[in-house]
Amino acid sequence: MNIDRYMIKDTDGKILHKLDPNDTGGLKSKTDADSKMIALKDRLAELQDIFFAQKKHALLIVLQGMDSSGKDGTVKHVFSGINPQGFTVTSFKKPTLDESAHDFLWRVHKQTPAKGYISAFNRSHYEEVLVPRVHEGQDKAETKRRFRHIRHFEEMLSEENTIIIKLFLHISKEKQLEKIQERLQDPTKHWKFDVSDLEERKYWDDYQEAYEDIFKETATGYAPWYWIPANHRWFRNYLALNIVVKTLEQLDLAYPKLNSPTPDISELISPRH
Amino acid sequence: MNIDRYMIKDTDGKILHKLDPNDTGGLKSKTDADSKMIALKDRLAELQDIFFAQKKHALLIVLQGMDSSGKDGTVKHVFSGINPQGFTVTSFKKPTLDESAHDFLWRVHKQTPAKGYISAFNRSHYEEVLVPRVHEGQDKAETKRRFRHIRHFEEMLSEENTIIIKLFLHISKEKQLEKIQERLQDPTKHWKFDVSDLEERKYWDDYQEAYEDIFKETATGYAPWYWIPANHRWFRNYLALNIVVKTLEQLDLAYPKLNSPTPDISELISPRH
Repeated sequence: MNIDRYMIKDTDGKILHKLDPNDTGGLKSKTDADSKMIALKDRLAELQDIFFAQKKHALLIVLQGMDSSGKDGTVKHVFSGINPQGFTVTSFKKPTLDESAHDFLWRVHKQTPAKGYISAFNRSHYEEVLVPRVHEGQDKAETKRRFRHIRHFEEMLSEENTIIIKLFLHISKEKQLEKIQERLQDPTKHWKFDVSDLEERKYWDDYQEAYEDIFKETATGYAPWYWIPANHRWFRNYLALNIVVKTLEQLDLAYPKLNSPTPDISELISPRH
Repeated sequence: MNIDRYMIKDTDGKILHKLDPNDTGGLKSKTDADSKMIALKDRLAELQDIFFAQKKHALLIVLQGMDSSGKDGTVKHVFSGINPQGFTVTSFKKPTLDESAHDFLWRVHKQTPAKGYISAFNRSHYEEVLVPRVHEGQDKAETKRRFRHIRHFEEMLSEENTIIIKLFLHISKEKQLEKIQERLQDPTKHWKFDVSDLEERKYWDDYQEAYEDIFKETATGYAPWYWIPANHRWFRNYLALNIVVKTLEQLDLAYPKLNSPTPDISELISPRH
């Protein structure tokens, strides 16, 4: 599949209305994707094994999106087959007092993956140019400054061998309402319902505008943004998994070789031992 | 005292030979400094109290210098009167395996001070453009890139309210030998002697050259370098303390005011309570 179509490039700050949350990349139904998902997950496990052994790169996957866009579900369905020893998920909530007393990248930098490891950020430093902007009157100069710091930070990570991909889960406003209603009706989903989600919906346009700026300011070659049509869960998972696999495939992955000449095993198993 | 004289500005990459490690800023002897040290330490304690209460800025003091230049001693003598609740020292040693598996700023960023706090770094991220360069063949492009990352990192910290001062303890090669001999002769200092210090002395010129580049590339308005003549311990401590105090005095320090109107205390102590 061609993932390039979903990479956000050269935006003028007005693209979201052109991106269809119902897009399914030409696939007709969940069944079409399901059969390919199994092979893709095997491939991911295979690549991760080499990635972990080689310890040359780290991989950071940033997940952002409106409430109910499916960040938790994406983590669950895309990475359920991965070796958990080499994988971590960090969910960034409202900053604690200690976190707020540091620069906004402090808590994020602490959680970046080591070489050989894959990390998913469920929300991230991008929250710091969303919530304070929509709700706390963060001024334009400050948002601008933070964009610059984010670019510098991601550039540094990238030059120090961390591969970064950023996924924006794109749902429609109608779909969001549908999902919130689902949470109210399905007893197994009640725990996910938060009355503040309805409150936040009033700021839908402000958040979308803030995202437009995020794409404009931080879609870089070293840390690209992909938009993931997310009205259909199955396509959301399928595309996200494809992007992760393709990203790993583009690296020069190889199991490390022995440093020294191969020891003569017959020596080790000789009667003398 | 005029600390500006010791700030490193607009260097062309060849300044160390012009800076006298025996300089004492016009003071004639330790006695001259001693009487002033007491008042200065009181002043530091006073300023730190407001700094801690206000929680508006953080203060990061980076200490660098050749082996035996007196980094430990400076921490001990300059900060011995400070309230330890608002003060931390981090000594950066050889990176651990986990630290090496992350970008070179990762372990440093974790230790940066929160607002209200003062941190001293005994060695720092600057080691990463010293040791690998002198011993591990770090190439020019990589050193250059790291300088850029360091500037960006310090600029970000600074714009997010961390005041940064960087102190280079400047001793002469002869003085270093004297101090190493002292460690060998004084039983209370034997523990400080490390045979690798003698080995490292062979690379004196390489280290000095690396420091010249550090000053050239990272002496910025937002994170200035000061050179501290360090052949005389007493002047080293006196100057370092002066720089810390002057830096704090330049901030708009003030105890925070009550947010709400002062409660009527007579209410609280009335018979009804």
